[in-house]
Amino acid sequence: MKKVGNQTIVFDIPPTVLETACIGGPKEANGPLAKYFDQVLDDEFWGEASWEKAESKIIKETVNRVVAKSKISQGKIEYCFSGDLLNQCISSGFGLRDLNVPYLGIFGACSTFVEGMGLSALFCNTPIANYALCATSSHFCSAEKQFRFPLELGNQRPQTSQWTVTGAGSALVSKSGQGPFITSFTPGKIVDMGIKDVNNMGAAMAPAALNTLIAHFHDTGRSPSYYDGIFTGDLGYVGKDILSELSLKYGYNISSNYNDCGVMIFDKSEQDTHSGGSGCACCATVFSGFLFNQLKQKKFKKILLVATGALTNATSAQQGESIPSIAHAISIEI
Amino acid sequence: MKKVGNQTIVFDIPPTVLETACIGGPKEANGPLAKYFDQVLDDEFWGEASWEKAESKIIKETVNRVVAKSKISQGKIEYCFSGDLLNQCISSGFGLRDLNVPYLGIFGACSTFVEGMGLSALFCNTPIANYALCATSSHFCSAEKQFRFPLELGNQRPQTSQWTVTGAGSALVSKSGQGPFITSFTPGKIVDMGIKDVNNMGAAMAPAALNTLIAHFHDTGRSPSYYDGIFTGDLGYVGKDILSELSLKYGYNISSNYNDCGVMIFDKSEQDTHSGGSGCACCATVFSGFLFNQLKQKKFKKILLVATGALTNATSAQQGESIPSIAHAISIEI
Repeated sequence: MKKVGNQTIVFDIPPTVLETACIGGPKEANGPLAKYFDQVLDDEFWGEASWEKAESKIIKETVNRVVAKSKISQGKIEYCFSGDLLNQCISSGFGLRDLNVPYLGIFGACSTFVEGMGLSALFCNTPIANYALCATSSHFCSAEKQFRFPLELGNQRPQTSQWTVTGAGSALVSKSGQGPFITSFTPGKIVDMGIKDVNNMGAAMAPAALNTLIAHFHDTGRSPSYYDGIFTGDLGYVGKDILSELSLKYGYNISSNYNDCGVMIFDKSEQDTHSGGSGCACCATVFSGFLFNQLKQKKFKKILLVATGALTNATSAQQGESIPSIAHAISIEI
Repeated sequence: MKKVGNQTIVFDIPPTVLETACIGGPKEANGPLAKYFDQVLDDEFWGEASWEKAESKIIKETVNRVVAKSKISQGKIEYCFSGDLLNQCISSGFGLRDLNVPYLGIFGACSTFVEGMGLSALFCNTPIANYALCATSSHFCSAEKQFRFPLELGNQRPQTSQWTVTGAGSALVSKSGQGPFITSFTPGKIVDMGIKDVNNMGAAMAPAALNTLIAHFHDTGRSPSYYDGIFTGDLGYVGKDILSELSLKYGYNISSNYNDCGVMIFDKSEQDTHSGGSGCACCATVFSGFLFNQLKQKKFKKILLVATGALTNATSAQQGESIPSIAHAISIEI
């Protein structure tokens, strides 16, 4: 591998995304991408006594699913990268405690999945790994409870707010294979433009996505048109518009081939979530389901996946802090 | 680099720990290792309006300090790995938001520092990095508030409980240099032996330390006596005794050269913290201060640093869950 420009890692022998798996919640089951999910749930509990335990079960079963689908024995998987939105990343910690694979916890809020894919690819591009796994999860109910208000209060949500996706996605990356290939990884920098509205994460995260997009295009010499599709993780409708406008201002026209996983996962007219979906599982399920399918079917040949995360918590918002954000990008090509 | 055995990465051209920095709180200032700190604080707030903001300032200033001490211009640092105990790792997110370095968030609870050092070394052992930085922090007051009870309640602490270290440690790792060298990295697996007592983290984490120790010795063919010192991160008095006993049971006698950073950082007779220190900053400050100094002075020539983390949160404890734990190890030699 080599570094090009200031912050993009190019994999000269690009690792393959060997297999993916995703599980979605009951709302996601009625969304337009549900048919690409491996499994959808009837309710938010999945037989567990709490939302947190349900989320752990979702990530656990998603990882079991990707291993089973890949037909690679679990003992051959050398590293697992995982993290999630719950405090101290307990969905991952509890869900994967029986995995018996060296575990490297990561946290980039909703950018976690792409951070994990980038690190998995990087490890597989060295002599130390043939197979590495990444996974992440989120859960609408556990996230609302933790970051905002108890659901029982029935609070109204402003139009800029997004709906945390219930689900998990996982990808198994292999040193060799037939593709789709992870060809580059652009880890992002923390960007904080002073947005303080915790009900407008799209606005807070869009500048981070812009920063990483510009770095990626600058480093690689590629233009937006190089890609069949550019997909951000969970900017939602508000953030998507901001990113489109900011990109144009900086000389990159992404209007014809850009979409956001938070916009794609729910049906705007039938499932009004206001500004769309969010959460670690938003990008993770849309990639592991729909996008991976389209790459395998050669409907997309080159995509750029840019997951965005808001590095905030409930206490910092109460203390009047703004929302530092980050975005990590990977290019995936067949 | 190469993988030896099942889970140890050996760096054939071992990266150098170029520089370290650490800042400690007011209690740490009276501990036996205070003279190795770059700075100690008079109070827990350091002029900030909250403990969380103080913790962010501590990690920020620690990272600024390591960069200044290294005399490497900040623009040359290519990656930063950081994470901490606060929900959503906000100490790192806020503290390092102005760093302007590609940022990869990590979370391994109190094992975070060694995870960061291992990843920094790994990146510097590839063509993509000459310099990588890792950092972590913890804060007694913010940790008590978040994980246990408001300090204002004045709750009594059981004898098995540990005292979260207020402080931060940071290390700058370089591809080349004069050492001390990071020669190997053994990432750990999640281990959960069913301990549910959140006031006995040492007992919960000791089996994870054992698991990683055995893996390290098995993979490398080394015995405990290979090292001048084996240091766990924050098992405290209770966990240290458990690990010593368990190790012996599995055929590894570590009694003559093993100590724990949580035992070392406070004076048992003058500063009774019950079972010793804990927190991400425990291992981070003891390494960045005392241990790095001893390595530079050649008083230690070969050490094994095994940081341990409890992957739990306050909600999971209330829901009756046990405490999954993890330990990551690096060997550092001159």
